[in-house]
Amino acid sequence: LASEQGTIAIIGAGSWGTALSIALGSAGRRVAVWARRGELATAIGRGRRNPEYLSKYELPPTVRATGDLRDAVTGAAFVILAVPSHGMRAVCRQMVPHLSDRQAVVSGAKGLEHDSGKRMSEVILECFASRPRRAVAVLSGPNLAPEVAAGAATATVVASEDGEFAAEAQAALGTERLRVYTNADVLGVELGGVLKNVIAIGAGVSDGLRFGDNSKAALMTRGLAEMTRFGVAMGARPETFGGLSGIGDLVATCAGRQSRNHMVGFELAKGRSLDDVLSDMSPQVAEGVETTRAVVRRAASLGVEMPISEAVHAILFEGIPAADAVTSLMTRAGRDELED
Amino acid sequence: LASEQGTIAIIGAGSWGTALSIALGSAGRRVAVWARRGELATAIGRGRRNPEYLSKYELPPTVRATGDLRDAVTGAAFVILAVPSHGMRAVCRQMVPHLSDRQAVVSGAKGLEHDSGKRMSEVILECFASRPRRAVAVLSGPNLAPEVAAGAATATVVASEDGEFAAEAQAALGTERLRVYTNADVLGVELGGVLKNVIAIGAGVSDGLRFGDNSKAALMTRGLAEMTRFGVAMGARPETFGGLSGIGDLVATCAGRQSRNHMVGFELAKGRSLDDVLSDMSPQVAEGVETTRAVVRRAASLGVEMPISEAVHAILFEGIPAADAVTSLMTRAGRDELED
Repeated sequence: LASEQGTIAIIGAGSWGTALSIALGSAGRRVAVWARRGELATAIGRGRRNPEYLSKYELPPTVRATGDLRDAVTGAAFVILAVPSHGMRAVCRQMVPHLSDRQAVVSGAKGLEHDSGKRMSEVILECFASRPRRAVAVLSGPNLAPEVAAGAATATVVASEDGEFAAEAQAALGTERLRVYTNADVLGVELGGVLKNVIAIGAGVSDGLRFGDNSKAALMTRGLAEMTRFGVAMGARPETFGGLSGIGDLVATCAGRQSRNHMVGFELAKGRSLDDVLSDMSPQVAEGVETTRAVVRRAASLGVEMPISEAVHAILFEGIPAADAVTSLMTRAGRDELED
Repeated sequence: LASEQGTIAIIGAGSWGTALSIALGSAGRRVAVWARRGELATAIGRGRRNPEYLSKYELPPTVRATGDLRDAVTGAAFVILAVPSHGMRAVCRQMVPHLSDRQAVVSGAKGLEHDSGKRMSEVILECFASRPRRAVAVLSGPNLAPEVAAGAATATVVASEDGEFAAEAQAALGTERLRVYTNADVLGVELGGVLKNVIAIGAGVSDGLRFGDNSKAALMTRGLAEMTRFGVAMGARPETFGGLSGIGDLVATCAGRQSRNHMVGFELAKGRSLDDVLSDMSPQVAEGVETTRAVVRRAASLGVEMPISEAVHAILFEGIPAADAVTSLMTRAGRDELED
């Protein structure tokens, strides 16, 4: 495949961009990873590690770092966007003059645009107006970055409406350790990665309150149900939420040991303030916080019931104590399981 | 409700029977818990704790223990069978002369009969031949016994084809801390509790091999898909596997800290023999071991693909090293997610 010959550009040198660079580079792919700050790119190039993220892993020799966006994308068959969602539109605008429509763009971000509530693939398509809709793919799944960097066996999904493009991306990005599945339901795959962060904050609250595995399992079950309701109301396929980018990512994120979103809930349950938790985490972000705002607003306009997301919203933004919000959720009158 | 007035008989004083006794007794229900060994019943009565299971929790004053089956069931509106599946038929046969058809029977076991592969509700119905099919209910969900005994908020499902009976059971067994949902799909609810134990052994193997949360999440996702395929081929509703007794129980069990089935996989991954692991666990049993045998046999006759259950079977009974079986599973060629 021609696509296997070209470089893969990874835009963003945070933990996900760094992990992907290591995973793809270790499989012999030529990777250019772009860091927004030139000094970070220089430090990576010099030390052969990213000093700020996953610093214990060496970059394979096939990976080079650059602070120049044009340099990063030139000649790349695939451009993977691994930036936080709040930075996506600005980075895409910067890329426009340097990218041809023949270069494939893949979104690896799991959030919504803050004010508009738009999905990342929508933002990308708006920036690259001449690009056909199907030429933007989404990469999502249970892909905790530290494990991907460590070479742990991981499965992920590339979603594109164009089966041929999806198969090309599968060949270009899949390795022995990073198994890539395809899915034509771009909307469902993208929403799974977005919505699970909200439920993961709730799971973190449950764990922070020491509610136990029974409670957390019930919360995740009902969380997946509301993710699916929301997705279906938006036009996604319900089966997608039963797959790697839905339940798979939900399970990996709610396990908790490695998720920033889970950590936010966990710390809030201990009585800390949101500002305090987020400033400790900076410059890293927990995408689920702003996502909760956008999702609850959109759910209201769609008329979709999302009690867990609403409880997370109440904890994050309405000053409701975590224990009260989760307790009222757990004691909510339930009758028939399939009607609730 | 009349059913709320009567005693609840809990047949079996293992960890699940003990936890249920404590949870129901703490909510003021009158409970008679039957222990197969008379000396255990006596010890429970004298010490107000079960010295063998969950011994740190005191029994509420409304719970009494007995070694006499007739004594346990007489006057009970609900009889909950909390015995291991290998003992179910013998206990039911003993109960036949003492039980009227007006007393509700609820199965709380999560296994299959070893030789026949029959579900517990089928075994119960065979024993009580005059009983209408709908008068046997199934109790299943993410209900780790130590947490139920500790009073942690827990959700569970009572399944019966008879909506009125299910609602009665919901009122009789539900408490502030044990939320009972109903579901008419008895087959699906029962199979969820059975099949998840097989996947939990696989998750234990993955954890024992230190494969990480990404791998385990992928295994659980594909595990749920094969549980659902099997269930649907048997006549269950696919939605049931997305509920508390499906994904919910799967998530709680695969978390691992409290599951005997997960422990079996974990220890096998360390290179120990099955006999060794099971004899350490005795007299407690890991239902998933014998279930795996029955499920793989049945899947073959139904023509249902169950690669994870087959891998677990290979590890348990065919002498295949755990690492080989799980690695070949993870590197199995995957293409489109929804077609796989």
